Amino acid sequence: MSIQRFASCIEACLDCAQACEHCAEACLGEDDVKKMADCIRTDRDCATLCWSTAALMSRDSQFSAKACELLAEVCEACAKECGQHEMDHCQQCATACTKCAAECREMAGVKA
Amino acid sequence: MSIQRFASCIEACLDCAQACEHCAEACLGEDDVKKMADCIRTDRDCATLCWSTAALMSRDSQFSAKACELLAEVCEACAKECGQHEMDHCQQCATACTKCAAECREMAGVKA
Amino acid sequence: MSIQRFASCIEACLDCAQACEHCAEACLGEDDVKKMADCIRTDRDCATLCWSTAALMSRDSQFSAKACELLAEVCEACAKECGQHEMDHCQQCATACTKCAAECREMAGVKA
Amino acid sequence: MSIQRFASCIEACLDCAQACEHCAEACLGEDDVKKMADCIRTDRDCATLCWSTAALMSRDSQFSAKACELLAEVCEACAKECGQHEMDHCQQCATACTKCAAECREMAGVKA
Repeated sequence: MSIQRFASCIEACLDCAQACEHCAEACLGEDDVKKMADCIRTDRDCATLCWSTAALMSRDSQFSAKACELLAEVCEACAKECGQHEMDHCQQCATACTKCAAECREMAGVKA
Repeated sequence: MSIQRFASCIEACLDCAQACEHCAEACLGEDDVKKMADCIRTDRDCATLCWSTAALMSRDSQFSAKACELLAEVCEACAKECGQHEMDHCQQCATACTKCAAECREMAGVKA
Repeated sequence: MSIQRFASCIEACLDCAQACEHCAEACLGEDDVKKMADCIRTDRDCATLCWSTAALMSRDSQFSAKACELLAEVCEACAKECGQHEMDHCQQCATACTKCAAECREMAGVKA
Repeated sequence: MSIQRFASCIEACLDCAQACEHCAEACLGEDDVKKMADCIRTDRDCATLCWSTAALMSRDSQFSAKACELLAEVCEACAKECGQHEMDHCQQCATACTKCAAECREMAGVKA
């Protein structure tokens, strides 16, 4: 696996982690927080797994591909949830999740 | 530092982490989520730092005391926030945070 | 899923995380550290994923089962590696990993 | 606090986290691993706290400054340890730690 592809997936994970952490925080500041509950839930889970998967890849873990396979699924679920809301933070999070899912699919060698 | 005291602080951190993760999730299921926004915020931060501080202590890190000093402050803030809400998950979280703060203060060698 | 089973898997993950963090640290203090390199590697990865999986379960995440499925594989690899070394910290870590793998298999609904 | 400064500190934390994870892994592959034990130890702790501090800042946590204050100390210790070894991975890690420490000092409003 080329280092270039590796670095690219780590970067996508870290962008996605930041977007998810920020989106959850911004959702908590919306007028109708109740409507955003599921978005906050997927944001939290996606962020947690983005951080741990990026840690594994940074140390060239033998489990990187399997962790990416799991993360791809979570990112896709988060992109779907966030994509339903029109706020900027949700749309930006959906974009980051979609990009991260694609990178993770490639890392995992698994087609969507 | 005796192993007993060490184990006791790790256990308090892990109980607190679980209580905070659960409380944030339960808050998202309340009717008035907006009212719980600050509680969810402190829960998230307290959980994140409980997990990382427990990791450091488990590996006998030289930075354990300093991490406990930070965590004590966060636990106290979280206990104060959660203590204002009457739901069981908030009250239980406040209790876990208060206990963790006390253990961390002892680990850090700093009086509250 | 009963709360009892849920709590049992979280507890196994947290015991395993602590055992892995401690084993890695103890391996670094051995005379022949080079021989322990792969053990430290699997310890690190197993610990990272134990912490994140426990976080997900504590918040009743919809991704708990999938995270447990991944963790079971990592725990089994770590148990195999640690089981090859006769030091107490390795043997205790192997035991904790084996228990965690079994609990995670049940959570994931996947037979080993 | 300007968003620009905030983003700059998060980026430094994430670069440092990756450098520390990679350095620990590369140290485990060196001929004389025993000599690198303390380097691996500080790398592990520094990485753990870089990830958690970046998570807090990404969600605009009220505890960001205090977390940065702790991380600055850890980064400085890691830079000092890594700086004693001539391997590229150690030198690059020392550079990333030094940069992260400086960013964190500014975030924390605390002079070194």
